[in-house]
Amino acid sequence: MDVISVIRTKRDKGELSPEQIDWVIDAYTRGVVADEQMSALAMAILLNGMNRAEIARWTAAMIASGERMNFDALSRPTADKHSTGGVGDKITLPLAPLVAACGAAVPQLSGRGLGHTGGTLDKLESIPGWRALLSNDEMLHVLDTTGAVICAAGDGLAPADKKLYALRDVTGTVEAIPLIASSIMSKKIAEGTGSLVLDVKVGTGAFMKTIEDARELASTMVQLGTDSGVKTVALLTDMSTPLGLTAGNALEVRESVEVLAGGGPADVVELTIALAREMLDAAGIKDADPAKALADGSAMDHWRRMIAAQGGDPDATLPVAREQHVVTAQASGVLTRLDAYDIGVAAWRLGAGRARKEDPVQAGAGVELHAKPGDTVTAGQPLLTLHTDTPEKFDYALKSLNDSWDIAPAGTAFTANPIVMDRIA
Amino acid sequence: MDVISVIRTKRDKGELSPEQIDWVIDAYTRGVVADEQMSALAMAILLNGMNRAEIARWTAAMIASGERMNFDALSRPTADKHSTGGVGDKITLPLAPLVAACGAAVPQLSGRGLGHTGGTLDKLESIPGWRALLSNDEMLHVLDTTGAVICAAGDGLAPADKKLYALRDVTGTVEAIPLIASSIMSKKIAEGTGSLVLDVKVGTGAFMKTIEDARELASTMVQLGTDSGVKTVALLTDMSTPLGLTAGNALEVRESVEVLAGGGPADVVELTIALAREMLDAAGIKDADPAKALADGSAMDHWRRMIAAQGGDPDATLPVAREQHVVTAQASGVLTRLDAYDIGVAAWRLGAGRARKEDPVQAGAGVELHAKPGDTVTAGQPLLTLHTDTPEKFDYALKSLNDSWDIAPAGTAFTANPIVMDRIA
Repeated sequence: MDVISVIRTKRDKGELSPEQIDWVIDAYTRGVVADEQMSALAMAILLNGMNRAEIARWTAAMIASGERMNFDALSRPTADKHSTGGVGDKITLPLAPLVAACGAAVPQLSGRGLGHTGGTLDKLESIPGWRALLSNDEMLHVLDTTGAVICAAGDGLAPADKKLYALRDVTGTVEAIPLIASSIMSKKIAEGTGSLVLDVKVGTGAFMKTIEDARELASTMVQLGTDSGVKTVALLTDMSTPLGLTAGNALEVRESVEVLAGGGPADVVELTIALAREMLDAAGIKDADPAKALADGSAMDHWRRMIAAQGGDPDATLPVAREQHVVTAQASGVLTRLDAYDIGVAAWRLGAGRARKEDPVQAGAGVELHAKPGDTVTAGQPLLTLHTDTPEKFDYALKSLNDSWDIAPAGTAFTANPIVMDRIA
Repeated sequence: MDVISVIRTKRDKGELSPEQIDWVIDAYTRGVVADEQMSALAMAILLNGMNRAEIARWTAAMIASGERMNFDALSRPTADKHSTGGVGDKITLPLAPLVAACGAAVPQLSGRGLGHTGGTLDKLESIPGWRALLSNDEMLHVLDTTGAVICAAGDGLAPADKKLYALRDVTGTVEAIPLIASSIMSKKIAEGTGSLVLDVKVGTGAFMKTIEDARELASTMVQLGTDSGVKTVALLTDMSTPLGLTAGNALEVRESVEVLAGGGPADVVELTIALAREMLDAAGIKDADPAKALADGSAMDHWRRMIAAQGGDPDATLPVAREQHVVTAQASGVLTRLDAYDIGVAAWRLGAGRARKEDPVQAGAGVELHAKPGDTVTAGQPLLTLHTDTPEKFDYALKSLNDSWDIAPAGTAFTANPIVMDRIA
């Protein structure tokens, strides 16, 4: 087996054999195949694609490069969720304890934010004392005793994917659906969950800008999960405007706690309940009612136990940014558009996100929305509040808010996108 | 300027701007752009192509990465030739002194063989004492005093191309016409010749297997040369069967000397004269007759002076391989096919070529043909003689000679390919 023949096969639009895929993933993990060879192959895959059998084998080879976790010892069925990332996407925070309250075990191995999308671990780290890094034993203990755990994925899962992802990031080969799908699914399958619900975001604030691309990615991932014995379903959900009224770490924790207390923005509640129903259904739990678990406080109880089990104080006061800047509406009328990507970039620039993996984030930084598409606004009313500890960033953040919303004359008809745009199983 | 935006531009089928091209070639030469980034870009170029303006700028940027030579001080017009490489392609050896004998100055900066095609320098190094490595001053002196020089290209010419070529070799990105064309032409234009004749080989033994690909490569190179003020013309020539009756280093020198003595195989003589006429025409020399210069010994005189000026003894006995193995015809009839690629691989395996740049070659190794397509053969007569100093390689070489020729019943009509298939100017 030699790497040039593998590259040539894909370059010339051929199908990679199972042996070629197993060999190249293993040889790359061991450093026998060099970065410049793998990046040429990644570009050939991006441009010429992979078929279902190739993607399945590629994913299996990445799983085989590391350890696999196993939740068979738990008494409850496991249900996991993965979001492809969006702006204001705090859904994991209320969702994990909600689904735990309904009887499933929810192992959420999560990541940090990079670029304009926030990271679940960054958000939870704004809670004083809370720890993202758990050993495998600690993780299983929290999961077993509280029903849910949200923590960092260990280094042992799919090391081939970690190496390949870092390479794709610097070689312009991130945007390949077969590689995105196998990257996500190799980690999720190696995690050992019994069922998985995918939240594939669509719109300006998402990785997938069109419904067609989102559908292709979702179908590919559902096939991969199903073929690996993981009951998998995907919802395509709207990311043309931020989810809820906040984008930022502590800001989103506060909003999540509002949802767990039975309140919170309607879109966050709707999506949280829709995903909870899918997770419970995939886990085979028939008679639970997530809306009731939000209303009766049982989801909040699970949240408090989960946070406390990882060293966090659920009653602590959350950090608030030192400075605020209010952006007002330039006209009266109906807000018909508020761009998710631009808000995400503004929150990132204010300090909520990071440009490089090693950068710190500000707990209090971010953007608060005072109106959502469909709302009537009055000229001069607050539209956004920008939060940061570093007020010299306001100008930089404001530069990203250029043509980021539309206000139409009062009375203009407006129909919001549905939150859940499609379902793929 | 950042490399990911450059890669994305070409990945997404866009046109690279002059600024992007200048920046990426310079940054790659300086090591600011990493190998894994350039290989992703090379694969995107291979799959999505470059237009005429991009190829011209890419070539100019590679030329600008190093020094340029200048032959303006010579009293005679310069004429250079480049072959894309074939099996038994010893044409440079008789051609350079022949064109010098007709009044042009012929600076032939040549390479070594890699893979199944031989290298001009390897061939000449089978002449005892002959030196391929000359300083720029030595090169100009030999050229000025003998009219022709064949030597290794200096490291200062197009260093970006050297680095990129080595990368393409290990990343499956050699076979991109824009990159092949710019690689060849950047070196040739940097060499400073006034005119250039390209011998673009077509067939199993060549890099370009089809006339369409060869025509595209030839057109691209002719455009590049013309745009840079070098009078450039290309001949597309047949490489479905070896040129002449030998493939191997000393074997080909001997055959070249036969041609210079007024004899030699008809196809080698025909192609040498055709290329000489093109070179003289491109150099603006009207009244010379290359056929006469072969017949009257003036080409041979120039050969002897050129070899002697580089330390070689034109009268020395050439090395002969220690062992021979004869392959006979399996049937009587008309030889209708004798595959160039297979013969090239056999010669390479016998020791005439190298697998890696640092490998040595055997002076005497190679394959001698006793018949060419169109010849009548008798069952049991010698068809090939294999030559090597390492007889344990005979089996390995014979494995490459599998279905390498066809013998049709006597009387079968046969029409040979013309040597010169097309001309592009």
